[in-house]
Amino acid sequence: MKVSFEAEVARLHAEADNFRPDCPTRVLLDHITSRWGMLILLALSSGTMRWGELRRWAQGISEKMLAQTLRTLEADGLVLREQRPVIPPHVDYSLTDRGRELAALLLPLMEWVIANSAAD
Amino acid sequence: MKVSFEAEVARLHAEADNFRPDCPTRVLLDHITSRWGMLILLALSSGTMRWGELRRWAQGISEKMLAQTLRTLEADGLVLREQRPVIPPHVDYSLTDRGRELAALLLPLMEWVIANSAAD
Repeated sequence: MKVSFEAEVARLHAEADNFRPDCPTRVLLDHITSRWGMLILLALSSGTMRWGELRRWAQGISEKMLAQTLRTLEADGLVLREQRPVIPPHVDYSLTDRGRELAALLLPLMEWVIANSAAD
Repeated sequence: MKVSFEAEVARLHAEADNFRPDCPTRVLLDHITSRWGMLILLALSSGTMRWGELRRWAQGISEKMLAQTLRTLEADGLVLREQRPVIPPHVDYSLTDRGRELAALLLPLMEWVIANSAAD
């Protein structure tokens, strides 16, 4: 476990060029680690949600910021936006396969954050 | 695996109040998921580093931002700052136990980001 951790770190360090400011890795990292990006991914990890549900879930988010966050995550291939042809019309948001893969990595991080800020 | 994932999501959703804007969880989440916060934690995950080494590693970071990021992570109990009484004097930065715990969760996320931005 320790060895594999060290090996992973060494490999990531060798790949540190991936984190140069002009690299696409930085851009994607910025998107998913933004406060709202993470919260929206977490919200959708339990299933499809509508706009209003997302807005209520991510307390404190503005309409503009929610729209922008969803557009960004959609462009990254993490969130799927589906317009439903019903009356009244509405739009469903859900995670793509790639988004679920990412959410699975974010969950333990969130748990750690909850556990560790409670301890303060 | 799938069941445990769903259960975790359900639990986190039940705890969604932890992510209210005025909650300490949000503050800690903001610190560690900031672009520079993550990169500094990743840099230190391989061992102790000095200021200049950190600066070179996190290409593009300003002196001011590096100082601010390190102070924040130190205040969160994630980074240890040690002044070495040598000539010339220098300061070592390393991860605390808590910081290593967090870094272990951040690494798979970083790997995913590298793999997935390359695929674009």
